[in-house]
Amino acid sequence: MARRTKIYEGKAKILYEGPEPGTMVQYFKDDATAFNAEKRDVIEGKGVLNNLLSEFFMTGLGQIGVPTHFLKRINMREQLIRAVEIIPLEVVVRNIAAGSMSKRLGIEEGTPLPRPIIEFYFKDDALGDPLVTEDQILAFNWASHQDLDDMVGLAVRVNDFMSGVMMAVGIKLVDFKIEIGRQFDGEMQRLIVADEISPDSCRLWDMKTGQKLDKDVFRRDLGSLTDAYSEVARRLGVMPKSPTPINKPKLMN
Amino acid sequence: MARRTKIYEGKAKILYEGPEPGTMVQYFKDDATAFNAEKRDVIEGKGVLNNLLSEFFMTGLGQIGVPTHFLKRINMREQLIRAVEIIPLEVVVRNIAAGSMSKRLGIEEGTPLPRPIIEFYFKDDALGDPLVTEDQILAFNWASHQDLDDMVGLAVRVNDFMSGVMMAVGIKLVDFKIEIGRQFDGEMQRLIVADEISPDSCRLWDMKTGQKLDKDVFRRDLGSLTDAYSEVARRLGVMPKSPTPINKPKLMN
Repeated sequence: MARRTKIYEGKAKILYEGPEPGTMVQYFKDDATAFNAEKRDVIEGKGVLNNLLSEFFMTGLGQIGVPTHFLKRINMREQLIRAVEIIPLEVVVRNIAAGSMSKRLGIEEGTPLPRPIIEFYFKDDALGDPLVTEDQILAFNWASHQDLDDMVGLAVRVNDFMSGVMMAVGIKLVDFKIEIGRQFDGEMQRLIVADEISPDSCRLWDMKTGQKLDKDVFRRDLGSLTDAYSEVARRLGVMPKSPTPINKPKLMN
Repeated sequence: MARRTKIYEGKAKILYEGPEPGTMVQYFKDDATAFNAEKRDVIEGKGVLNNLLSEFFMTGLGQIGVPTHFLKRINMREQLIRAVEIIPLEVVVRNIAAGSMSKRLGIEEGTPLPRPIIEFYFKDDALGDPLVTEDQILAFNWASHQDLDDMVGLAVRVNDFMSGVMMAVGIKLVDFKIEIGRQFDGEMQRLIVADEISPDSCRLWDMKTGQKLDKDVFRRDLGSLTDAYSEVARRLGVMPKSPTPINKPKLMN
């Protein structure tokens, strides 16, 4: 592959300049981090699984009319995406109390919430991505009223879709995080789902056993992360049957 | 004074049963606590100052039509108040970044905010009074949509009034906290300002020198807390000129 311009490198992904204006290539690394990168490891194969799973979810969302950044998968590690300006807010949707909500509000993990709760976290590693209120978001102009309405609308639709997907394969969608970007076309802009949707960004519990099939396996040292992610991929039928060569031409489309 | 039924004892105040149904007596202690009571001390005279200052602010609010729990001061330590059911949310209004907002959002202390920001904190000492979002408040039914609207309305009016009071005596109202209670009359209820408004619950900076005239003097070991509170009281003309006997009859009305 020709030398490319790196636009941004994050904890789990790299963004390169894309082949056309308005596109980028998103590369999924095997790096796993947790607790604001205080815990780190390299998990062989994680990037491939997240690339495949994010493709699966984003494609499905596109089919029901939820706009996303996904254009096509290029190879086992990379996908072509729309270039967007990421809104500096992580949007979290929770169906069941877990993680930081349980800790902060004293609600036992596993308690079903009265209804889905949407939270915004300010994307800033140095500050540990603090929870922020809509009033703060508006006052500091991180997003407008209209943006917030659109973001909530996208978050609710993603939750509905992902809940359905997971329910169909015996998994509870406990919570998830999405990032949302502004896609520009001249003076027009729209908000679309960006970043990734994968077991790195969801909490997924097996409905019968309660087994965790998400990044908590890494955060809490509960076993093999790739085994957990592979189980999700296997149930969804998106698992590569055998090791697949990277950059195999037929995947180029 | 006759033996009374204690209803509730908090960190800085005690509530006793009042003489009439629907009333309580609020007693101001000299206890100072900070950082969720990890730091404690007894500050001789603080309770008297807060009783006088809270009377001053609540009376003023009543005069401009903001409903409060305040009925009358009984003596140097006690005031007669309306019995309310406290909503379990601390309502914070911020005009200038300071304290936890500066820390959480990485905004230097003293930075004027683009506009006043209203925050809600869930009143729970064991959890350290976490910041909560309106979505969480509604989902867990800590308050209704109407309650939130009413609370924001009260908070804005208290901010306007208190900003004016402080500006008039050369003090910047950086931020403050209020608590709001439900007052019931048969099937009717209304929300009113409760608890106290005092240098314990505000951040007050001298306009010229920046000197702190509030509980941060205690939190950050900046000198005499009663000197700071007395300065506020002195500027507002509510300072007792000399030691005043407690329960002096003329103060009964």
